Amino acid sequence: MANVFLPKGMRDLLPHQMIHRQRVIATIQGVFTRYGFEPLETPAMERIETLMGKYGDEGDKLVFRVLKRGDGGERGEVDQALRYDLTVPLARVVAMNPQLVLPFKRSQVQPVWRADRPQRGRFREFYQCDVDVVGAPCGLADAECLAVAHECLRELGFPDFVIRLNHRQVLRAMAAAIGAGEQETDVIVAIDKLDKVGRQGVSAELVGRGLDEAQVAQLWTYLDGAPIPGADAAEAELDRVEAAALALGVDRARLQRDRTLARGLDYYTGPVYEAVLTDGSVGSVAGGGRYDGLIGMFSGRDIPAVGVALGLERLLLLMEERGMLPEASTLTQVWVTVFDAETEAASLAAVRAFREAGVAAEISLQGGKLGKQLKAADKRGVPFVVIIGPDEAAAGRVQLKGLVSGESEVLPLGEAVSRVAES
Amino acid sequence: MANVFLPKGMRDLLPHQMIHRQRVIATIQGVFTRYGFEPLETPAMERIETLMGKYGDEGDKLVFRVLKRGDGGERGEVDQALRYDLTVPLARVVAMNPQLVLPFKRSQVQPVWRADRPQRGRFREFYQCDVDVVGAPCGLADAECLAVAHECLRELGFPDFVIRLNHRQVLRAMAAAIGAGEQETDVIVAIDKLDKVGRQGVSAELVGRGLDEAQVAQLWTYLDGAPIPGADAAEAELDRVEAAALALGVDRARLQRDRTLARGLDYYTGPVYEAVLTDGSVGSVAGGGRYDGLIGMFSGRDIPAVGVALGLERLLLLMEERGMLPEASTLTQVWVTVFDAETEAASLAAVRAFREAGVAAEISLQGGKLGKQLKAADKRGVPFVVIIGPDEAAAGRVQLKGLVSGESEVLPLGEAVSRVAES
Repeated sequence: MANVFLPKGMRDLLPHQMIHRQRVIATIQGVFTRYGFEPLETPAMERIETLMGKYGDEGDKLVFRVLKRGDGGERGEVDQALRYDLTVPLARVVAMNPQLVLPFKRSQVQPVWRADRPQRGRFREFYQCDVDVVGAPCGLADAECLAVAHECLRELGFPDFVIRLNHRQVLRAMAAAIGAGEQETDVIVAIDKLDKVGRQGVSAELVGRGLDEAQVAQLWTYLDGAPIPGADAAEAELDRVEAAALALGVDRARLQRDRTLARGLDYYTGPVYEAVLTDGSVGSVAGGGRYDGLIGMFSGRDIPAVGVALGLERLLLLMEERGMLPEASTLTQVWVTVFDAETEAASLAAVRAFREAGVAAEISLQGGKLGKQLKAADKRGVPFVVIIGPDEAAAGRVQLKGLVSGESEVLPLGEAVSRVAES
Repeated sequence: MANVFLPKGMRDLLPHQMIHRQRVIATIQGVFTRYGFEPLETPAMERIETLMGKYGDEGDKLVFRVLKRGDGGERGEVDQALRYDLTVPLARVVAMNPQLVLPFKRSQVQPVWRADRPQRGRFREFYQCDVDVVGAPCGLADAECLAVAHECLRELGFPDFVIRLNHRQVLRAMAAAIGAGEQETDVIVAIDKLDKVGRQGVSAELVGRGLDEAQVAQLWTYLDGAPIPGADAAEAELDRVEAAALALGVDRARLQRDRTLARGLDYYTGPVYEAVLTDGSVGSVAGGGRYDGLIGMFSGRDIPAVGVALGLERLLLLMEERGMLPEASTLTQVWVTVFDAETEAASLAAVRAFREAGVAAEISLQGGKLGKQLKAADKRGVPFVVIIGPDEAAAGRVQLKGLVSGESEVLPLGEAVSRVAES
């Protein structure tokens, strides 16, 4: 017997899982489309040079490398790698396609691969759901990204989220104002940990990184709301983004200016935002911001960009834990049994009629006792079964049975089809 | 400037391509669901041992191998590979999940990777669309696979296809009947080339492989319809599959028994079939068959299986060449322009209203002259634009303009929304 197991951190998505996933993805893609973000797909493999140096030293180590050709003789040649996120491929696409009309709005829903240590609910292959606007200055484009994340979470049915909003230049101005301009990254990294380590933890880290206590105290006054010298332009941009987001339908109560929001990624340059649930669960369910420098790394000319990504795997986990996913374990609405060889033709005609009416229908493929067939349908969670015994076949009728209600009725095929189609 | 190009044989799918693709895939998945095939996804990476030895020596060489970890220190360790098809992963899933209720019907629409020589319309990453029934004996299950392929092609709008049907045991019986039982594979391989090399070519190949002319002549009588000793059971199976397929809705005129159909793959054991277009274009658009031995290679117990795969990339290419794809280059139905800073709020309210009514709507993100905005909308192929100048804003109305018709009308926002929603 061959080794049948999967590589580390990999998993299958069986039908009862896929049904929920496909619904959630369809909801998200529906919102993306309504907001004018059009679909893009990029290949799983990129050139190694495209990916290296974009995700920091730690990220570089987590990129899965692919051998050029399968045969061992060329084992040394590694020039391809699996995509690590959807943002760098987007930047490459923009650089490769000068014919694209800017601003270019695209959505992308595809898996990415990271050779991370697997944890509960975290896998080495997972989907990202991104929208980005390439080629538009700060303002409406940022508001669109905020609004699209807001609408996705609303439509998925989350009642309790807020979107935190900050600006990288606000953080930079704070660092400069306390005389730590050269340690801007240290300051941002420390603040980024607030949710995890608390105020004391952040203060300790800042002192550990060489700031004195007066600087740290001053920083807290800014974080708590004191006016920050040199942050006016950034604050004005946030005002404009916020106003546009509200006009696009974002709920005012869900939008929070938060000077402690840093977002880890290096490449952000302007507004940053993330959506969190207010039930105290740790971590964000969506996040993004403006990154005006990344595309230029590929295209050689500066092209501004802003985007947001939804955390599909976390959203699905939360929806499952909260019972927000419907019970359905199958898409099949009716199961047509086969009584015996004589009635098989009638059963085939029945399953055909359901399908022609747009009803997802199965026919028992293995024959056997009726009880066993009904049990299989029940186990799958199919709501209706059809039984056509010799009496029904002779009378040109079918028995329609609801497996939840237990109710059963003998009626003409056409009526049975309408009954299920309208249920 | 970094090297921005793609690895060999890879391509992006830009929005105007994705729109058609997603529609075609949605049609195919809709049929799969209606026929009771439920979605499965497997990870891109499998263990190397899972894939090796399943695709023949040539296939093994085309499997993309992945390094265990990114860092060079472990470069030698190659224990993963990218999936090469969807059938072997299915066999692994069945073996890994003994809780699955058999017969197990699944659909799978995912990319596969092959380090093949790239050609026009052939890439190293391409989608497969498979349905399979695992755990059902020959009969209805085979007919279901035939019927689902038939329905997909019908619903996609192909008027001119036929499905050729044969049985591996018919081929085996022919080889035995001409005294070439030990050369069964040679005979099948030669017959498989009939479409490409013609009758003379097949005969020449058979002689080249050691058959004498009498054997070849006898073989042609069988291929042309003479009764084949020892093929009765297989012919009876085909009769049963054919009858069930017709009962499920397959058009009799589209189903052709064809003793010359071999299907290349080693692992078929029973009925085989493929759909071809009758316009003379070479190659099949769908194909499959029964493979009762493959699952047992993983699970250690014999489990019968049958499936069919649609050639998505070829279907898309043919649909494009034949003008079967609608003209649409965008999913966005309306483009709301921004006249100036004063009217921006009215434009934001307008785009919000369209979206809330389920209409895909964009707002100009870059401002600039109205003429430039209209040009951008036209270039994208958006059918409607909305203009809100100071007069319209003051009157609480919007100007709705059809970019195809050229007609334009000033009306209340709500009416403009209804107009587009109903168009």
